[in-house]
Amino acid sequence: MGGNSFGTIFKITTWGESHGKALGVVIDGCPPRMDLSAEDIQEELDRRRPGRGKGSSPRKEKDRVEFLSGVYEGKTTGTPISLLVWNEDVDSGSYEELQDVFRPGHADFTYQAKYGIRDHRGGGRASARETVGRVAAGAVAKKILEKEKIDVMAYTVELGGIRAKKIDYPEIEKNDLRCPDGDAAKEMAQEIEKTGLQGNTLGGIVEILVRGCPAGLGEPVFDKLEADLAKGLMSIGAVRGVEVGAGFRTARMLGSECNDPMGPRGFEKNDAGGILGGISSGADILLRVAVKPIPSIGLEQKTVNHSMRPVTIKIQGRHDVSAIPRINPVCEAMVAIVLADHLLRQRAIIDGPLASGAGM
Amino acid sequence: MGGNSFGTIFKITTWGESHGKALGVVIDGCPPRMDLSAEDIQEELDRRRPGRGKGSSPRKEKDRVEFLSGVYEGKTTGTPISLLVWNEDVDSGSYEELQDVFRPGHADFTYQAKYGIRDHRGGGRASARETVGRVAAGAVAKKILEKEKIDVMAYTVELGGIRAKKIDYPEIEKNDLRCPDGDAAKEMAQEIEKTGLQGNTLGGIVEILVRGCPAGLGEPVFDKLEADLAKGLMSIGAVRGVEVGAGFRTARMLGSECNDPMGPRGFEKNDAGGILGGISSGADILLRVAVKPIPSIGLEQKTVNHSMRPVTIKIQGRHDVSAIPRINPVCEAMVAIVLADHLLRQRAIIDGPLASGAGM
Amino acid sequence: MGGNSFGTIFKITTWGESHGKALGVVIDGCPPRMDLSAEDIQEELDRRRPGRGKGSSPRKEKDRVEFLSGVYEGKTTGTPISLLVWNEDVDSGSYEELQDVFRPGHADFTYQAKYGIRDHRGGGRASARETVGRVAAGAVAKKILEKEKIDVMAYTVELGGIRAKKIDYPEIEKNDLRCPDGDAAKEMAQEIEKTGLQGNTLGGIVEILVRGCPAGLGEPVFDKLEADLAKGLMSIGAVRGVEVGAGFRTARMLGSECNDPMGPRGFEKNDAGGILGGISSGADILLRVAVKPIPSIGLEQKTVNHSMRPVTIKIQGRHDVSAIPRINPVCEAMVAIVLADHLLRQRAIIDGPLASGAGM
Amino acid sequence: MGGNSFGTIFKITTWGESHGKALGVVIDGCPPRMDLSAEDIQEELDRRRPGRGKGSSPRKEKDRVEFLSGVYEGKTTGTPISLLVWNEDVDSGSYEELQDVFRPGHADFTYQAKYGIRDHRGGGRASARETVGRVAAGAVAKKILEKEKIDVMAYTVELGGIRAKKIDYPEIEKNDLRCPDGDAAKEMAQEIEKTGLQGNTLGGIVEILVRGCPAGLGEPVFDKLEADLAKGLMSIGAVRGVEVGAGFRTARMLGSECNDPMGPRGFEKNDAGGILGGISSGADILLRVAVKPIPSIGLEQKTVNHSMRPVTIKIQGRHDVSAIPRINPVCEAMVAIVLADHLLRQRAIIDGPLASGAGM
Repeated sequence: MGGNSFGTIFKITTWGESHGKALGVVIDGCPPRMDLSAEDIQEELDRRRPGRGKGSSPRKEKDRVEFLSGVYEGKTTGTPISLLVWNEDVDSGSYEELQDVFRPGHADFTYQAKYGIRDHRGGGRASARETVGRVAAGAVAKKILEKEKIDVMAYTVELGGIRAKKIDYPEIEKNDLRCPDGDAAKEMAQEIEKTGLQGNTLGGIVEILVRGCPAGLGEPVFDKLEADLAKGLMSIGAVRGVEVGAGFRTARMLGSECNDPMGPRGFEKNDAGGILGGISSGADILLRVAVKPIPSIGLEQKTVNHSMRPVTIKIQGRHDVSAIPRINPVCEAMVAIVLADHLLRQRAIIDGPLASGAGM
Repeated sequence: MGGNSFGTIFKITTWGESHGKALGVVIDGCPPRMDLSAEDIQEELDRRRPGRGKGSSPRKEKDRVEFLSGVYEGKTTGTPISLLVWNEDVDSGSYEELQDVFRPGHADFTYQAKYGIRDHRGGGRASARETVGRVAAGAVAKKILEKEKIDVMAYTVELGGIRAKKIDYPEIEKNDLRCPDGDAAKEMAQEIEKTGLQGNTLGGIVEILVRGCPAGLGEPVFDKLEADLAKGLMSIGAVRGVEVGAGFRTARMLGSECNDPMGPRGFEKNDAGGILGGISSGADILLRVAVKPIPSIGLEQKTVNHSMRPVTIKIQGRHDVSAIPRINPVCEAMVAIVLADHLLRQRAIIDGPLASGAGM
Repeated sequence: MGGNSFGTIFKITTWGESHGKALGVVIDGCPPRMDLSAEDIQEELDRRRPGRGKGSSPRKEKDRVEFLSGVYEGKTTGTPISLLVWNEDVDSGSYEELQDVFRPGHADFTYQAKYGIRDHRGGGRASARETVGRVAAGAVAKKILEKEKIDVMAYTVELGGIRAKKIDYPEIEKNDLRCPDGDAAKEMAQEIEKTGLQGNTLGGIVEILVRGCPAGLGEPVFDKLEADLAKGLMSIGAVRGVEVGAGFRTARMLGSECNDPMGPRGFEKNDAGGILGGISSGADILLRVAVKPIPSIGLEQKTVNHSMRPVTIKIQGRHDVSAIPRINPVCEAMVAIVLADHLLRQRAIIDGPLASGAGM
Repeated sequence: MGGNSFGTIFKITTWGESHGKALGVVIDGCPPRMDLSAEDIQEELDRRRPGRGKGSSPRKEKDRVEFLSGVYEGKTTGTPISLLVWNEDVDSGSYEELQDVFRPGHADFTYQAKYGIRDHRGGGRASARETVGRVAAGAVAKKILEKEKIDVMAYTVELGGIRAKKIDYPEIEKNDLRCPDGDAAKEMAQEIEKTGLQGNTLGGIVEILVRGCPAGLGEPVFDKLEADLAKGLMSIGAVRGVEVGAGFRTARMLGSECNDPMGPRGFEKNDAGGILGGISSGADILLRVAVKPIPSIGLEQKTVNHSMRPVTIKIQGRHDVSAIPRINPVCEAMVAIVLADHLLRQRAIIDGPLASGAGM
């Protein structure tokens, strides 16, 4: 009930603080007999590691994932998969002077208000480092989707006000910012560099595309596919808005424009973003999230301390200039987890073979 | 697991189809000894009734709510509250010709794909009429919030491309469209009339404001307050996007602009929309949702039938021109339900008096 | 969270008080395209109706079940099934004098302690009449099991100290007490008559047998099949003990006696009661529950009122002498619900066909 | 959904296999600002360690618990508590010859039937070693109960057919078997020694007493306190039966005997075992569980291999003769977890102070 679990059949529980001993995740409900290796997980973790893209924090985490349970001789056994990453490069010293201060834009004040206590070091549980567990679980979810040929991909369509003017998929893997427009990517990189030197930070927009999703996933009413996706994405710290398909653009459309006509080969356009009435339609699923600028800026800021007395702070150390592109694999992870869960939910209500054991 | 429940401690389960016998909701986890009358519920239901605002459907539902359990001598008893509204004015005849056709923009195709069967009459479970149960439950949630002086209000900030240019709260109750700008309201009404005559429909944007919410509600990580709010709002049929605080605008802000500075009297601005790190900050909570145009239009449309053969349809009967303003109380209901639930969750982790019975 | 829901994928929520307007159940997660009629439900409800066996209360409930949603043209649609039974023959007058008194053996005191309020009429929510919703949901669960040729049967192996000396299955349907030993059934009936005349009540033991359950149902660790069965059965008001297979007898067995040896054709005996390590083994599932005597006796009893002052009461009206045999279909219902739920859970983790719609 | 979580507000998730790298538990929903140290946990873990009582297995596990998250400067923070115990003394060699064989009385066959794969080493996830996580979580639950002066104690009332003839509480801590009758304890110890030399094993009965529980815990209908307790206890591998209060004895009582009369000072006897209508009454809670003999015996047994061909096996190595007394702290843990959870659930529905932070 503490809100650290997500999913229904494929259910994950993450734990760990930024400057604690370790962070990890327990995955319950993963189907048995799936190939799963530490490399599958590591590959995804490496994508969210600092020090990859430009404007990323230089904290040197090796982030080596360790399997503790649920996998035997390279295959899942159906029992809980426990994964852990140790916190190695932890210097909490620089946080000491912030111990008594509520940093603007951070969760310092609200954690204190909620719990009456908080581990202030590195943001504690509210740190973006919490997403390590999500990405690890997302890697497992992706393995489930892979078997059904479902593919999830997040890319940057806007950063610091610069928009991608085209969506050229192969370009995404070619630049650090995962932008499908190479020219825009260069501008974005310059904007990051410039803003970083000013001690400031940038926001942007990430788009998530799901290809190969069959029709029929998602439950009507409250657990609509887009509702669970919105929850999953909005639960990522920096995300402040979520839209599906034409999203906020639909507010200005006419019904005759917004409806996607169907023909013998399926939908003839896809403003619905692949979901109708909460259920996947078989068309590509398209989502977009607004990512706010990172609140840890190098400029002097006005705030208060625990006694609500005014203080000014200047956050030391180097931080990322933007949550993008490190947030992209986190978005992919959340989308993959929601889809894997709904895939298993859909299986449950269909007549199918019962025993999974050979010949029993 | 069928996705018809919402909430954790304050948990609702809705049921019913558009042209079935009745629709209703069961509320489990409502605190005992609260005053609750049918009028409390009816008042909210009347706000979403058709035939209120301009451009609303003329279907005459009396929608009289009936209490079946959980209330004794005007007070809640702590046991499940079962509420029901009978479907009286149901003419399924006009739907017969659509029995074999997938209406564009509707859930017809996806329900068929998911279940292999569907009650096609009036959209069945996918009908907006399903929200009767949500609004009834929302009325109960509002009673819980009222005791804590928390107030939830939804209003129209954009419709058919026309934006409210000012937010004048008293104006909201003065026009049918619940628009806080009287002049814009008039323009919106004209646009609705014009578009309706053309057999077309309109979308818009609804804003939801929560005043009086104490700091501390919401659970970090997955059950962040904005994540649960996003799920609740995105689970409303016509909603295609959700944002909190400055929302998609944050994508173009600098960190120094986006952070809300704190002073001795609290936050000095509120671009965070009252939520930091998933927990309410004590400031006003501000949300915005994109509402797509209603898919039932009076114009001829291209689509396919169950055999995937092309057909053209023209939906008969009169329908609403916009989901706004009838969707506004539904938005309020979902926000109220999420807040009531998190209020009870917060109580659970705080040391407090145990026995609720007098002197036991 | 109020504890009125049961199950995970096949999930039921019951509501209603003994002397309220109606009682009912909402079933969420029932697979689509199953034949389901009011008669299927009614048949099971009739089995728990008063006035059937000897020693049953004469309250004349017609208990006609009404379908409100989830079934279309005789088939389930995958949406929630809402079922309701009206309370018709309700005379709350005889309960007025008990309004301020805690009846011994009843939940009067504890409801007051928990909620600080209670609907005292007929025991309110704590009445055995609450099981109407369970039995109705159990009838739906049995339809799911039927397709897999799983059969659930409850019968009386002890009543008022009289034990069935043999288990003759065809005999069960031949006597009102559902006792598999015809001679014992006669003795039990006499004991009921005698005890009833004395204004007293009797307990007994019910055995539940499940035939045809495939191996593989049940989740290891907390959701072991026997753990969920124990919860389901212990949640029935009068049940005070539950055992599986040899149950309490295993406490005095040697390991060499207790273990069931396996041969090429399966288990050579079944002291495990069809469950090993929380998972069904394919052998018959065997459970036993202890049923306490009904607390409403016609004799004078010592107790206290709401002011904790001593009073003596004598409960008026005629009540059942024993919860047996009316509790038997309730036991069957709970077992059927648990098995149907675990059946769907097992399907979810097995690779199977995805789309349930024809050709999509 | 894999069944490895337990509880609603105070929710635990255990993971780990007998011969995997480690076992552990994540506790979500623990209230903040509670004192909690590794010693609190270690003390409980030491009670279930092998090599304590007579007839215990000689496997040398140091079982040092390691805190990974959720505790800061000796206090809980409200975030998930992750605890882990490494598997150090693991020799899987002796299990190799059992790799292809279904051991009688074990979960080998049913895991294979369910998952089509299993980690056979030491019973994998089905090993009693899984209870390490339960006991660790139980230690945290006990800290919550302690603040409310609720005390949980399990003791042995029967072992190998020898019954405790008196309940002398101070005696419980004086003998290894936790038997409240010193003379019976000696007989039990002799029986264990004798049976162990014969390569056989013994069952027994454990009683659990809860003192100081306030009235009002437990939810009516499905989440009755005794229902959740029954589930918790029945989910322990060796438990085959559970009863509350007079339990199976009530089957032979008259209503006039079974009802507990109330006087001005409360209940005048306690055959109900402290629970009425699913809610605690304020009287002592009393439960009893049947513990089957350990299935790993040193005698030759008949069984089959994965090809369902007959084989005889003789399990090597030394194993416990009885699950008692090592199972006693596991019973305490499950009861403590259920009570802590219901304590927090009861708080949620009572009006109380909202903000937990000082002055916010």
